[in-house]
Amino acid sequence: MSIDAALSELSAFLGDRLSRSKSDLEAHGASETHFALAPPDAVAYPESTEEVARIARACRAHGCPIVAFGAGSALEGHTSAIAGGVSLDFSRMNKVLSIEQGDMLAVVQPGVTREELNRELRATGLFFSVDPGANASMGGMAATRASGTTAVRYGTMRDNIRALEVVLADGRVIRTGSRARKSSSGYDLTGLFLGSEGTLGLITELTVQLHGQPEAISAGVCAFDRLDDAVEAVVTVIQMGIPMARMEFVDTETVRAVNAYSGTDFPLKPHLFVEFHGSEVSVADDVARFGEIVAEFGGSDLRTARKTEDRTALWTARHHAYWACLALRKGATAIVTDVCVPISALADAVEETRDDIAASSIPGPILGHVGDGNFHAILVIERGNAVELAEAKRLAGRMAERALRLGGTITGEHGIGMGKLGFMRAEHGAGWDVMGEIKQALDPDNILNPGKLLPGT
Amino acid sequence: MSIDAALSELSAFLGDRLSRSKSDLEAHGASETHFALAPPDAVAYPESTEEVARIARACRAHGCPIVAFGAGSALEGHTSAIAGGVSLDFSRMNKVLSIEQGDMLAVVQPGVTREELNRELRATGLFFSVDPGANASMGGMAATRASGTTAVRYGTMRDNIRALEVVLADGRVIRTGSRARKSSSGYDLTGLFLGSEGTLGLITELTVQLHGQPEAISAGVCAFDRLDDAVEAVVTVIQMGIPMARMEFVDTETVRAVNAYSGTDFPLKPHLFVEFHGSEVSVADDVARFGEIVAEFGGSDLRTARKTEDRTALWTARHHAYWACLALRKGATAIVTDVCVPISALADAVEETRDDIAASSIPGPILGHVGDGNFHAILVIERGNAVELAEAKRLAGRMAERALRLGGTITGEHGIGMGKLGFMRAEHGAGWDVMGEIKQALDPDNILNPGKLLPGT
Repeated sequence: MSIDAALSELSAFLGDRLSRSKSDLEAHGASETHFALAPPDAVAYPESTEEVARIARACRAHGCPIVAFGAGSALEGHTSAIAGGVSLDFSRMNKVLSIEQGDMLAVVQPGVTREELNRELRATGLFFSVDPGANASMGGMAATRASGTTAVRYGTMRDNIRALEVVLADGRVIRTGSRARKSSSGYDLTGLFLGSEGTLGLITELTVQLHGQPEAISAGVCAFDRLDDAVEAVVTVIQMGIPMARMEFVDTETVRAVNAYSGTDFPLKPHLFVEFHGSEVSVADDVARFGEIVAEFGGSDLRTARKTEDRTALWTARHHAYWACLALRKGATAIVTDVCVPISALADAVEETRDDIAASSIPGPILGHVGDGNFHAILVIERGNAVELAEAKRLAGRMAERALRLGGTITGEHGIGMGKLGFMRAEHGAGWDVMGEIKQALDPDNILNPGKLLPGT
Repeated sequence: MSIDAALSELSAFLGDRLSRSKSDLEAHGASETHFALAPPDAVAYPESTEEVARIARACRAHGCPIVAFGAGSALEGHTSAIAGGVSLDFSRMNKVLSIEQGDMLAVVQPGVTREELNRELRATGLFFSVDPGANASMGGMAATRASGTTAVRYGTMRDNIRALEVVLADGRVIRTGSRARKSSSGYDLTGLFLGSEGTLGLITELTVQLHGQPEAISAGVCAFDRLDDAVEAVVTVIQMGIPMARMEFVDTETVRAVNAYSGTDFPLKPHLFVEFHGSEVSVADDVARFGEIVAEFGGSDLRTARKTEDRTALWTARHHAYWACLALRKGATAIVTDVCVPISALADAVEETRDDIAASSIPGPILGHVGDGNFHAILVIERGNAVELAEAKRLAGRMAERALRLGGTITGEHGIGMGKLGFMRAEHGAGWDVMGEIKQALDPDNILNPGKLLPGT
């Protein structure tokens, strides 16, 4: 067996850092959402770039798949080892290698989580902005081009990664990008690896952009009687250019779930959760301008919070919304949809989606990073119920098709994995073949995360 | 001859839009800077994407090179037809196809220049931000990942292009990206074509991000006694997070040239030219905070200009700096260097460069977009003087090596073309080979802009 040959070669230099224990295999083959268990044949725990390169060379020589694994928080089955092989777990490559205050950069290994990085930054006055909610690994966030609540102001992983070190399928180690803020030096390889979901290379080091802690931060909440008023207010705020640091929408269903789960007492109405960053003067100005727009669309008075603990409570409630929604049904799992549409189409997209879900038997709270036009319906289904899974997939499919019809994309931040493969041709046409041709050029033996993202898989 | 066969096939459907006139060939083979004339065998003027695709198919069938041509303002010989073939001139594909105010987007053909686009946007309250100085074409700016004075606030072409239509070497037409503000849907093909300098595909349509005209704009000028004080002030402003809309450095030599060329009377000292965009309140706040930093570093009082004509006069003087420097010597040409370094290394990089040039016989005013760490020395040489050209190349080479040693890049915004090929291996190592492998996958016959950007050329 070629996989066996690879594993015996790996175990020769990894020793007990090549695990074949059942619990390890199952933990690495499981999914955060609804995908069936697909365990690897072994889990490798490299400690250096050189070890990752040796793993790549050995696996390529024997045709053994490699599935990169960070925190396991992917939502589209990215880390499932559907062709077996090695799950390459980066948890031992979890060091912050340097913090460069003058350049507002940090150099980290891929296994560092975003919360670990921000803990290390606490004393510096700097922070890493990308915040997908889950405490994902930096490597995983890069590989899915993740974003989250702060992207409306600070951008996605695409905007916050300056440079990468990558091990290619044949074991070559390359460095992309530089410490400079911009470059016109050849193809943007950094950008190519961001969002490639472990199919083009294994990210072994990241140089990330940090931001200065703002002088003033104010968080706020306001409620609207009607969903479309909340969304129209968002559209106006974006068009006015108010530099929102966060602008999150939660619908009434989500508020109900959050109140039950987090013990909050938000009124049962659609809400915006927002945050403002800047100087004292500019934050006060932004809050005032935002408040005027909210009032214009019939929103409630903006309740603001300046203290750290109050702000943390607010965002913790928001970040737990996924778990709050899952808790709506005992032993449930979910399909988490993730479309992103042009701002002008946002109100229609949200309303049509709400009507669609209302006509179905499945609960589907809607929430999202609406400042970017990105929103999710959390389709809560009974684990193992094939009828409900099919119905949720039907709803998710209609959301994806709707997003494309409105000029948007099938995924704003979760990626393709296995879950979105069926919509790639509709979104990209012949562009999907071009992705396949690039894959063929860099990984001709299809060793890296086979069965994800690409055509013909 | 294979090129002849291609040209006769092209002339069959292009008619007199395939030109072989001597003046046309020379205009398309000339360089804005020091590169020798390298005319194509013919110039094609397509009027539609379908015609571009037919040109690609015909040229590929006969092995005839295609060199995309926009406004001809490239600085590194990008449009020189060094292997002959067809210069594909996009000047007849120069329409603004739509302006979508709600989404703050415009869809344009590649031959539209940035000034033309901004003229069409005048009544909308929106503007296209990327401003490299030259009135470049949108296609050309995309192909070099251009930036300029406003990148410090609004980003480069990488940040302002939402979607592309591209004709591949084999005539396939693909669409990349979408109208959504972000996406995690597969490889970032938009990003791959941006900066590919016509070597991977021919850009036939661009969907570009617009920005709202700010409520308030204030421009300003201040002088410093010492170059390093000016640069240190810039570094502090960036680290404080003041949202500068522009922050340009010009050294004393540049000021002297600008005064002579534009009739201005700036004191003969290093200067910062800056601009602030925002609400009335935030601009006043930013100006005050900036002024404090300038004072701390011994700068002169900030002279601000609010009226449109005063601001235009200021930026026109800045934008004409290249011509002002060329006018230092009669019949001169120049090597325009273009390094970008981490902000923390900026003062050292500028000072070492100044010392290096001061020790040489060639004038080399220094100026740049220092908020990004990007600066240029304009090495003014006598046209046709091989000794001076060699000396300028030596100085430029030392700047590139210095930028790499300091963690930066050999080009912040001008691209590689032919002029920077010699430094690509030093910057990218095996990453340059990866660029070659991607090129091989998408253009195996090396039809598109041969001899530029890639290894082995």
